[in-house]
Amino acid sequence: MTIPTAAPAMPDPVQLAEAVRAGDRRALARAITLIESTRADHRVVADALLAALLPHTGRSVRLGISGVPGVGKSTFIEAFGLHVIGLGHKVAVLAVDPSSQRTGGSILGDKTRMVDLSRDPGAFIRPSPAGATLGGVARRTREAMLICEAAGFDVIVVETVGVGQSETAVADMVDLFMLLLLPAGGDELQGIKKGIVELADLVVVNKADGDLAATARHTVADYRHALTLLRHGDWRVPVLSCSAVHKRGIDAIWDTIGEHKAITEGNGQRATRRAEQARAWLWSEIRETLIDRFRAHPAVRADLARIEASVTEGATIPTTAAHALLARFLG
Amino acid sequence: MTIPTAAPAMPDPVQLAEAVRAGDRRALARAITLIESTRADHRVVADALLAALLPHTGRSVRLGISGVPGVGKSTFIEAFGLHVIGLGHKVAVLAVDPSSQRTGGSILGDKTRMVDLSRDPGAFIRPSPAGATLGGVARRTREAMLICEAAGFDVIVVETVGVGQSETAVADMVDLFMLLLLPAGGDELQGIKKGIVELADLVVVNKADGDLAATARHTVADYRHALTLLRHGDWRVPVLSCSAVHKRGIDAIWDTIGEHKAITEGNGQRATRRAEQARAWLWSEIRETLIDRFRAHPAVRADLARIEASVTEGATIPTTAAHALLARFLG
Repeated sequence: MTIPTAAPAMPDPVQLAEAVRAGDRRALARAITLIESTRADHRVVADALLAALLPHTGRSVRLGISGVPGVGKSTFIEAFGLHVIGLGHKVAVLAVDPSSQRTGGSILGDKTRMVDLSRDPGAFIRPSPAGATLGGVARRTREAMLICEAAGFDVIVVETVGVGQSETAVADMVDLFMLLLLPAGGDELQGIKKGIVELADLVVVNKADGDLAATARHTVADYRHALTLLRHGDWRVPVLSCSAVHKRGIDAIWDTIGEHKAITEGNGQRATRRAEQARAWLWSEIRETLIDRFRAHPAVRADLARIEASVTEGATIPTTAAHALLARFLG
Repeated sequence: MTIPTAAPAMPDPVQLAEAVRAGDRRALARAITLIESTRADHRVVADALLAALLPHTGRSVRLGISGVPGVGKSTFIEAFGLHVIGLGHKVAVLAVDPSSQRTGGSILGDKTRMVDLSRDPGAFIRPSPAGATLGGVARRTREAMLICEAAGFDVIVVETVGVGQSETAVADMVDLFMLLLLPAGGDELQGIKKGIVELADLVVVNKADGDLAATARHTVADYRHALTLLRHGDWRVPVLSCSAVHKRGIDAIWDTIGEHKAITEGNGQRATRRAEQARAWLWSEIRETLIDRFRAHPAVRADLARIEASVTEGATIPTTAAHALLARFLG
């Protein structure tokens, strides 16, 4: 499932880094394919590439955008991206969709989405890598974000499906997490899992147009009321509305993102958040690699199924079984 | 902080197992102290002890009881325990309170609690082990539960403070998770964290007496309505009321626990739940031990602080730092 068919032959990381920085789009795509590869030899080159690019990263606004299917995420990201490009920025859109490993598709794999944005030279759109766990997708997206920053993209949009699986991972890798809502009742009615609204730094009610304009105003008022107590440091979570299809309200959203940047850079919260994110990324990488290596160890694999069955049947104490397996792994 | 001052000299696991099974209370306390020890040589003996006791475990009703401070948990557990002992059962009460590592105390450490129950020869009460993480407390409580079962206790009550930290861990080790509520508004007003009510197999409104009797009836009705959609397999979560201080309603609660046992044993759900719990315990033990060993490895410890600082400062990519540390650990 994870055979990297599109993986390059071994590139020179220094040359590739230079081409990425020079704005070579094929080099950018190739660099991301490299870090998505699961081959150990590719990983060595990927680490060297990332080390070469690291000094040129960190200078973008990192945005997470989530919302349930039907909220108009693609239409919003297209309108938002074109608006921001019109102001002179370069926008990269990355997707986090662990479900794509099952469907084989991906939330950004459909080329009919965001047609105008995908044709714009100021934009770069990358679908979710297939065949990876949420942890794997999150790691690759974090690395793709760094590569896009080094390639000169100063606005990074990380898109995720708002059904509760990947929102925490995305909120943990961006500066501002934006939740798109429908003009409708509460978040439970909209199918948003508990705890997702609490992750948001900015709430936007989309489809505030036509017959839904009045409902959208009520939804904005309801969420403003509900969110009055929710503060992230000096930031009170704003609730805005927009009509992505009519491109209305996008400018106010971008202005609010700018205010958030000014405030959180001023009070040090953006730097603190990024430092905490880096630390959390380090430990999740360590944990996931440890358990992957454990599962893959020949002496563990040889007996894991038998021992796991013995544990679930109640014939072996889990602690004892764990220690027996760990002794094989750690020697 | 974790010096096992009360830890025994190395006991013979076979002799200790026999003494536990014979009903020797000092042996029971000594066995639990042994499994709570963090010394590696104690752990070897503890594993042998648990292996010897394993064939005699699993035949109790495992209950988790949670509720916010002030709900009357101690009064309830005392009334409940004495009622169940009066029916011929033996009751062990274990506490899961990871906060006790900070306060030095523990939710069951106060000897003035449950005076009558603690004096009853049919009861055994054990405070939360101090100086351990939630994972450590949970592991020790799971093992203490098995030892109590082997010692002939056929009702195990695992008590936890209902503030959202340890409820999931407790629900993951018992057959039935009971949530005690106050006669008052919704769970948010009562200080119960989101998601806790959803863990409950049984909801009980305590203090249904005197001035609060009418409010208790309303609270029962409200929760019955709210929980109509919540089913765990063939089990519709019941909402009962009681007055622990007047010992009213305790018999109906025990009867309901019996119905739950009959239904879930009949349809296989109790066995399935215990098998899943054993598997989850195995993997959490593996994960926690791996990360503990990683942190304790000399080559990791020597550089961890420096590398972690380099990561949070943005000077090293977390993935690269993780691979460098893992190479030292895994060789």
